[in-house]
Amino acid sequence: MKKLINNPESVVSESLQGMASAYAGRIYCHFDPTFVCRADSPVTGKVAVVSGGGSGHEPMHAGFVGLGMLDAACPGQVFTSPTPDQILEAIRTVHGGKGILNIVKNYSGDVMNFEIAAELAHAEGIPVANILIDDDTAVKDSLYTQGRRGVGTTVLAEKICGAAAEKGYDLDRLAALCRQVNLSGRSMGLALTSCTVPAKGTPTFQLGEREMEVGIGIHGEPGRERMRLLTADQITEMLVRSILDDPGYSRRVREWDRAEGDWSEVELISPPFEKGDRLLAFVNGMGGTPLGELFIVYRKLAEICNREGFPIIRNLIGPYITSLEMQGVSITLLRLDEELIELWDAPVNTPALRWGI
Amino acid sequence: MKKLINNPESVVSESLQGMASAYAGRIYCHFDPTFVCRADSPVTGKVAVVSGGGSGHEPMHAGFVGLGMLDAACPGQVFTSPTPDQILEAIRTVHGGKGILNIVKNYSGDVMNFEIAAELAHAEGIPVANILIDDDTAVKDSLYTQGRRGVGTTVLAEKICGAAAEKGYDLDRLAALCRQVNLSGRSMGLALTSCTVPAKGTPTFQLGEREMEVGIGIHGEPGRERMRLLTADQITEMLVRSILDDPGYSRRVREWDRAEGDWSEVELISPPFEKGDRLLAFVNGMGGTPLGELFIVYRKLAEICNREGFPIIRNLIGPYITSLEMQGVSITLLRLDEELIELWDAPVNTPALRWGI
Repeated sequence: MKKLINNPESVVSESLQGMASAYAGRIYCHFDPTFVCRADSPVTGKVAVVSGGGSGHEPMHAGFVGLGMLDAACPGQVFTSPTPDQILEAIRTVHGGKGILNIVKNYSGDVMNFEIAAELAHAEGIPVANILIDDDTAVKDSLYTQGRRGVGTTVLAEKICGAAAEKGYDLDRLAALCRQVNLSGRSMGLALTSCTVPAKGTPTFQLGEREMEVGIGIHGEPGRERMRLLTADQITEMLVRSILDDPGYSRRVREWDRAEGDWSEVELISPPFEKGDRLLAFVNGMGGTPLGELFIVYRKLAEICNREGFPIIRNLIGPYITSLEMQGVSITLLRLDEELIELWDAPVNTPALRWGI
Repeated sequence: MKKLINNPESVVSESLQGMASAYAGRIYCHFDPTFVCRADSPVTGKVAVVSGGGSGHEPMHAGFVGLGMLDAACPGQVFTSPTPDQILEAIRTVHGGKGILNIVKNYSGDVMNFEIAAELAHAEGIPVANILIDDDTAVKDSLYTQGRRGVGTTVLAEKICGAAAEKGYDLDRLAALCRQVNLSGRSMGLALTSCTVPAKGTPTFQLGEREMEVGIGIHGEPGRERMRLLTADQITEMLVRSILDDPGYSRRVREWDRAEGDWSEVELISPPFEKGDRLLAFVNGMGGTPLGELFIVYRKLAEICNREGFPIIRNLIGPYITSLEMQGVSITLLRLDEELIELWDAPVNTPALRWGI
């Protein structure tokens, strides 16, 4: 294992200390329990947007804390869910009187711990909505998930909901928006190499010199299939097909019913993409892939979407939801409407995403 | 070799086609000869800032084209200098009547080809100043260089000079500013792994599982020494020491004398850092290093600079001058004054660096 670290046990805390030092005055890092929040927390008069999950996916989530995006991020250990006490303390710190939107990637540990934190916050009189992101078209269930995994759409949901919170959306409207973003987004990823979790010290999986893993998760969970290495154009075609041809789905998820003060099941329907849909295209590097290769993927992606009548009107290209030093790429397509376009374009000022300010 | 590419021969052109498609309306990619320029070129009434060099260091330089930074970038093939005709055509396209500042990294091929382009532009009546960046403290001469190599300070010089050009600095003042930035910046890098040039197909060098290469160049040129892998804190200490303890130097470089219409030698003196110097700290990922590790390096860097009386008042952390998928890091420290701070903070709007807009 070759890494720029001191000790596998202290990777997350030292990395956050570095972030705290680099962005002092903009973000604040709390330890024991660990969370990162806006330095000006709590921002009163708006819903606070909170997310979190295992570390190792940087800049997600801590790099998205700031005006127009997240109020707080709760980083767990590498590829390990944050604990309920981290989430609860973050909620208490950033709550500005208008409630909390938790954006939760669909992994069993994250879902459970954000649910516990929501219940505890509710008991303290803080209104909370937990919205799941489960946009990965690769597999129905996986090692760490019931249902689809939450991947690239998370970044887009955090940007869009963060902007909406700044604009004064109340908690119900913001939760509905986040649900809409999730149901409008689809992702598919692929790995050329494995990553190595510091505490383990050996690669999560082995791939031959001419092999790739299609449909990989962001923790190196097995994907759809292992196959021989193809060209960038073939790979892009395969990933895009998986997204555009996804038949859509309906499913039941647990959501917190604030009127009843309990969990209830909600039926969600995600329609397939349709010709003419205007898209945001997000080409994401898994951490170890050179930026130049992501542009080779984007080139083909734009060509396919153009040809098939899906105009790409916004894009994001770079390593935003990574898997340590894994080489690979994921593509996320998000159906836009006027509201989402305006919220995407709104000012944002975080360590990793910044414009308009 | 595992890469997201179609053909080693077309890596650069396809990657630029992807960029052109992603940032249409903001940048324009010209092919045959190849260069990238602002979509609104030429911008009249200001000096145009041009840079370029081998590809494989993305986002540098094409990712820095835009308002407040570069007017044009000339990408060569991977790790190969751009040709004089590329540079000349870029100069002609972006010249807005006030002359051209070429920011040139000190590699023999780049220096020669930018010199030829400057002479040809001069013959066409376009005033040009070529300023060298040679900030690498690692080695005196290297495989591709006479004198110190140009590395991280290049990114900072492009940002600062781009801002100054927007503010209306004339060519002489802008050239003097670029010279000052170069003489105020020092860098030192280190690799944990090699990269693989697509056209070659095998790693540039081999490192054992417990080895690292200290003082590496951005093309995988040999560094100062190969040694056993140390901790992130030890590595950071070593890189920072090399920079802060650098005794400074004086040297003679060729610069274009516009009055004489010929090259003349100029003596440049770069003083060492002194306690109390206010610094911009740039922690750069070499391409394959996770962002979280860069923050572990920054944590120690900030601690050392604080302890030794070098306040860090600005920073930049991320992969900005890379070496394909190489794992490693470089540190650049730049002495700031009020003018440089104001120019650093000025608005910039490029694919890779954006703020204030």
